[in-house]
Amino acid sequence: MSERKSTDVHAAVSNGNPPPDFELPYPDRPEVITANMLKLVEQTKDPRNRFVFKVLIKHLHQFVNETDLTTDEWMSAILFLTRVGQTSTALRQEMILLSDVLGVSALVDSLNNPVVGGATENSVLGPFFTEDAADVELGDSIASEGKGDYMYVEGRILTTKGEPIPDAIIDTWETDANGYYDTQYTDRAHPDCRGRLRSAKDGRYGYRAVVPVSYPIPGDGPVGEFLRAMGRHNMRPNHLHMMVEAPGFNKLTTAFYPEGDKWLSSDCVFGVKKSLVVSLKEINDDDEARKRGFPKGGSFKLLSYDLVLVTEEEHRISRMHMDEELEE
Amino acid sequence: MSERKSTDVHAAVSNGNPPPDFELPYPDRPEVITANMLKLVEQTKDPRNRFVFKVLIKHLHQFVNETDLTTDEWMSAILFLTRVGQTSTALRQEMILLSDVLGVSALVDSLNNPVVGGATENSVLGPFFTEDAADVELGDSIASEGKGDYMYVEGRILTTKGEPIPDAIIDTWETDANGYYDTQYTDRAHPDCRGRLRSAKDGRYGYRAVVPVSYPIPGDGPVGEFLRAMGRHNMRPNHLHMMVEAPGFNKLTTAFYPEGDKWLSSDCVFGVKKSLVVSLKEINDDDEARKRGFPKGGSFKLLSYDLVLVTEEEHRISRMHMDEELEE
Repeated sequence: MSERKSTDVHAAVSNGNPPPDFELPYPDRPEVITANMLKLVEQTKDPRNRFVFKVLIKHLHQFVNETDLTTDEWMSAILFLTRVGQTSTALRQEMILLSDVLGVSALVDSLNNPVVGGATENSVLGPFFTEDAADVELGDSIASEGKGDYMYVEGRILTTKGEPIPDAIIDTWETDANGYYDTQYTDRAHPDCRGRLRSAKDGRYGYRAVVPVSYPIPGDGPVGEFLRAMGRHNMRPNHLHMMVEAPGFNKLTTAFYPEGDKWLSSDCVFGVKKSLVVSLKEINDDDEARKRGFPKGGSFKLLSYDLVLVTEEEHRISRMHMDEELEE
Repeated sequence: MSERKSTDVHAAVSNGNPPPDFELPYPDRPEVITANMLKLVEQTKDPRNRFVFKVLIKHLHQFVNETDLTTDEWMSAILFLTRVGQTSTALRQEMILLSDVLGVSALVDSLNNPVVGGATENSVLGPFFTEDAADVELGDSIASEGKGDYMYVEGRILTTKGEPIPDAIIDTWETDANGYYDTQYTDRAHPDCRGRLRSAKDGRYGYRAVVPVSYPIPGDGPVGEFLRAMGRHNMRPNHLHMMVEAPGFNKLTTAFYPEGDKWLSSDCVFGVKKSLVVSLKEINDDDEARKRGFPKGGSFKLLSYDLVLVTEEEHRISRMHMDEELEE
């Protein structure tokens, strides 16, 4: 190779790796291309990456073979994925959304957080968590007045043995009555319908909130087009997010889904689990509403749920069992 | 769902599709997520899309299951693909590059253009073809003087029966002696090392060019990182692109790879086929060089190759046979 002298050029540079030290037949036929690719992957130093790349290539090539993908279809897929990347911004992650509607996010979450008897199950994190939620005390409100119908959320943070976990950090966030998160408002001045609190000595937590509302995921990008091509709706049932952290315990990312929502069983991002479907108790008691701190009194909905965390050790063991099941 | 009134909001809008009219169990376990996803795909109206989506989801979910992909690995993959999309510009298509280095582009090309006995085989198009190449006549040069070592390219455009194809449109492009395409120069004033010509009445074509040089594909983006993680080089062996079109014939996109290049058998985009590896004949004859039109005379390399096109009918039949083979 001659020396590259020009400077005014979009130069590509060799990464310094030599040709492989094994023989590769010319990739004259489809099966040789796949075989060569699998041989090349063997050069990957990191054993975990090597394994993941191998399985990836196997399935990618099988997909192309089984569909006998046409050149035009392949180009459409390339341009689609390019647009998914380019639609992503600091405020919107379209590639996560794609993973969500394909069930991949839920599948990864499900494999990584196997159910431990008695413990609260995980649900998808979603794109609306922020770090800037205000700290709130027991009984405080996470929503400013007028954001929606009153809801009081309470319960305990417990171990799988039923012991209270004090001082656990609880992040919680939800939509307002319009079905919007605060971050969707272009004039967002401060966090709203979200808060961070700590469980008390007896593990108790409690806060005022509003009844969340079902909402569509963004439909104006490539993922929206994909859902329309599949004839699928783009709705999520209404829900309240909670994320709980305590030293020595596996971080719990979950959400609660009030029963009766028409989108419950076909949540477009596969977030709902049966154990996370909750009944909201209607409390029609003006005194009780005012005692709980709701300024206008009247009635409110009550959501009571004890969140049960697994220890890091319990989590590790459950992952091992899951792996054994998968290998069988 | 309450009416959405706010205007100053990044509103997502329902696409109007109703919940599916079949039962879906809550996706409580990994296998239920996959099963639900496959049921939802059944709503896809277009039968071909329905089939492709089903096979895609099957392999995507199998990949996650077989690797027991961790949450962190999944997030890395999401961010990687996002960056691949965002690295793509009007001048650079990083998603195609990713497909290229994974062998997918070559596989799709190979399945879509099965070998027909006696016909010239396809090779990958690559990202450097442009529409603006100048028209050249038989014997003209596609490269300006000083762009590299002299090479004369000649041969005939033929049918599989050996009959000449006159007036075929031939596009050809290549690197200069620095291993750069003209489009890589930021000060590109006009097309260079590329041209468009037509075969003569007897099917003959011939033009002056330069000996191409091996080169690296871009290594400064996510695809470059991926190749380094795999311990793979990012080089392509030197080659001359040719694309031939004639009415009634399947468009041929190919390239010729001079023998002896150290990157020949491990071309990082799987473009080389045995039948496309060529010998360059060294002609050390000053008179002959000047007769061919090389201004400085001296010596030149001769590349002789007859390109054999398949008719649209031959192509259609070969695709059918390939499908039958795949189904067996």
